[in-house]
Amino acid sequence: MALSKTPYRGTRDFFPEQMRLRNYIFSKMAEVSELFAYEPYDGPLLEEIELYRAKSGEELINEQVYNFVDRGEREVAIRPEMTPTVARMVAQIHREVSKPLRWYAIPNLMRYEKPQKGRLREFWQYNADIFGAPENLGDLEIIQLAIAIMKSFGATNEHFEILINSRRFVDYVFAGPINLSPEMTKKLYKLIDKKNKMPAEKFSAEVQQITSDPKKAEIFEKYVSLSSMKDIETFFKETYSGANQEEDFAKSLKPLMTLFSQLESLGFKDFIKFDPSIVRGLDYYTDVVFEIFDKHPENRRAIAGGGAYANLLAIFGETPLPGIGFGMGEVPLTDFLTTHKLIPSFAKQDVQLLIGYLDASAEKTALTVANALRSGGVKVEVLLGEAKPKKIFSHSDKKEPHFLLMLGSDEVSTNEVQLKDLKTKAVHKINLSDVDKMIATIKGSR
Amino acid sequence: MALSKTPYRGTRDFFPEQMRLRNYIFSKMAEVSELFAYEPYDGPLLEEIELYRAKSGEELINEQVYNFVDRGEREVAIRPEMTPTVARMVAQIHREVSKPLRWYAIPNLMRYEKPQKGRLREFWQYNADIFGAPENLGDLEIIQLAIAIMKSFGATNEHFEILINSRRFVDYVFAGPINLSPEMTKKLYKLIDKKNKMPAEKFSAEVQQITSDPKKAEIFEKYVSLSSMKDIETFFKETYSGANQEEDFAKSLKPLMTLFSQLESLGFKDFIKFDPSIVRGLDYYTDVVFEIFDKHPENRRAIAGGGAYANLLAIFGETPLPGIGFGMGEVPLTDFLTTHKLIPSFAKQDVQLLIGYLDASAEKTALTVANALRSGGVKVEVLLGEAKPKKIFSHSDKKEPHFLLMLGSDEVSTNEVQLKDLKTKAVHKINLSDVDKMIATIKGSR
Repeated sequence: MALSKTPYRGTRDFFPEQMRLRNYIFSKMAEVSELFAYEPYDGPLLEEIELYRAKSGEELINEQVYNFVDRGEREVAIRPEMTPTVARMVAQIHREVSKPLRWYAIPNLMRYEKPQKGRLREFWQYNADIFGAPENLGDLEIIQLAIAIMKSFGATNEHFEILINSRRFVDYVFAGPINLSPEMTKKLYKLIDKKNKMPAEKFSAEVQQITSDPKKAEIFEKYVSLSSMKDIETFFKETYSGANQEEDFAKSLKPLMTLFSQLESLGFKDFIKFDPSIVRGLDYYTDVVFEIFDKHPENRRAIAGGGAYANLLAIFGETPLPGIGFGMGEVPLTDFLTTHKLIPSFAKQDVQLLIGYLDASAEKTALTVANALRSGGVKVEVLLGEAKPKKIFSHSDKKEPHFLLMLGSDEVSTNEVQLKDLKTKAVHKINLSDVDKMIATIKGSR
Repeated sequence: MALSKTPYRGTRDFFPEQMRLRNYIFSKMAEVSELFAYEPYDGPLLEEIELYRAKSGEELINEQVYNFVDRGEREVAIRPEMTPTVARMVAQIHREVSKPLRWYAIPNLMRYEKPQKGRLREFWQYNADIFGAPENLGDLEIIQLAIAIMKSFGATNEHFEILINSRRFVDYVFAGPINLSPEMTKKLYKLIDKKNKMPAEKFSAEVQQITSDPKKAEIFEKYVSLSSMKDIETFFKETYSGANQEEDFAKSLKPLMTLFSQLESLGFKDFIKFDPSIVRGLDYYTDVVFEIFDKHPENRRAIAGGGAYANLLAIFGETPLPGIGFGMGEVPLTDFLTTHKLIPSFAKQDVQLLIGYLDASAEKTALTVANALRSGGVKVEVLLGEAKPKKIFSHSDKKEPHFLLMLGSDEVSTNEVQLKDLKTKAVHKINLSDVDKMIATIKGSR
């Protein structure tokens, strides 16, 4: 029986058009990262599963990780996220290098998901992190980096917004005014995550059920309705009942408010929004958390998410090193760019020159000229095999090279050729031995 | 207990220096491929194992493949090579696209190996293939591409050579003059592969044993001593005993001899060598086979290998489409480049401008200028947090940016700054609002 030609469920074949798009996306991400002085890194495809057990939470391990036992009886997993790997790597070197560390990567990851829009089993995820930056300034930089990456694709604040919250504030609310058991806190976390996907009444009912106290429910409903820095300041004052108001305010709210005022003063007011429903499920976040959100009514979903962590290195027995980072998957990003028509066409290959030859005697010349031009940086396709003009033109129509060169026995004997610019229809008469002129003509054209 | 900080056996952490080297290698490979009009593609990390069962041979499956059963009871494998994937992809589309197809990829692969020099469990492998080219011309192009990639790293024919053979010729020898059972043929294949790693007497003894016929052994020993196109022509004539000499010569030797004469006429004589010990173990090769070999006496090993195949699509129930391709692993390539001192230094990050600020009042200006310059394509690192000149200079000495900009309250109030070129020691006085001049100054320098 013939084998299946389709790729494994939830994975993709990248044919040249799709691959050129992927390369475009990755090169923009890398380019902007380098503009911000972030350095590239990568880690292994497989990690021992303990790394994820310690960092990623049970849900990811039990339901989404591709894990197996290797031939040496080690339990390993295909990386489902990059943060545990980057933490392991930084733990190796953080004592010897000057801080902050600014790192980015674009690894392929796998999760055992039910394939659906925006979600596949194999995907690539841009990751950027800054470790050991002075208080507040890491947050400030990483959010500017996130905005710059989005802008590099032509996106503006009409297309996306960055929704920001702080786990410090969330922790204050849940441990202070609401004061629930850790178990109930966890349930509230999950409920917030789903808030925008359920009717308001259903949400309220579930809040009542989890808190089982109308007063607590009221505070919680008030919390989730907060929408500005002014709001949260008032909310804090109204709900605070401890003994060190100033200190607790500085601890729970000051960093978030500083971040907002800094971003506003740098001109990013229209890109950011406080959103109490952003809590980010993962255990390791301890401070600012954020998501880049699509503003399009038909694609209201997160394109990227991240946050600050104080303690990633603890599991390696290392001293704490605070950091903040985010991940941006190419699948939701591509959906976003498609929704807003921000993707250029990658259907055509970029061939600068097509060389065709009319008889076998011109073959050697065709191949020699092609190599000489390639050495000068010109992208040359040789139409292999002697061909009649009709065939050369028809191939040229299909591939749409910028220039066309046809060689026959006449050209080979006189050394004079006609280099045709197919965009301007200009014809350049050039001596075959004048490779520099050919290169200049082709590279000088637009 | 603290978790291990080391990567999984046979895999690597790519810290920024190593990652910049990897990016350099991959970008050269991609660049040269595009000069030859090859298009990028990629496939999934996992394939169903049947794909490799059908293509790769039992040794790879039983000993080297990372395979496991997924949560849906499918037996899958992490790709150990790219050829089965590219065949599966081409099988989907080859009827609708114009030929030849020229494709390249740089996938990460995994094999369960005992880690040693030049061999790791996770590695990247450049792959290039041309499908459906006219007879001979695909071989000719792919070998030129291989040479061009090597040359792009600064390698010359002093550093490497391309060892070439043809499975058609090998098949002729094994089926004709030597005429062994398929089982013995397999053993001879394996023996040839190991020829350069064993003493001559041991090799002869094993040949005697496998052929169990002094005459056949003599022919075989003669075969492995062949070293030129002239040699093989004579050898063919001396050993031929069939009824259609001319036809069989054309079938078994003509393509190889044509390839050699074409490569020589194009100026690649010093890069190529006939080598009867190159047979390439994989089942799918049917014609020209070759390896790029390091000439350095201390690193005599293959950097890349490939060959022509007539029937890759058969397992998908598709009509035959001949092709030729090769794979080049980054691990042996890096060993080669290191051996010949062809690797530039990637220890330093490329920071074009470092901005430091002396007091908090200059922070906003520093961050604003940084963003403006980044929009103009300048790589800017901001030293986060106010710092004394001494700290800024010490950081600058470590990072070695091209330019340095120090901002204090004076600069912020007068708007006049000194942009220091740390290479030439030139100092450019510029108005802070003249971003274009700053960009031009930084980008115009070398």
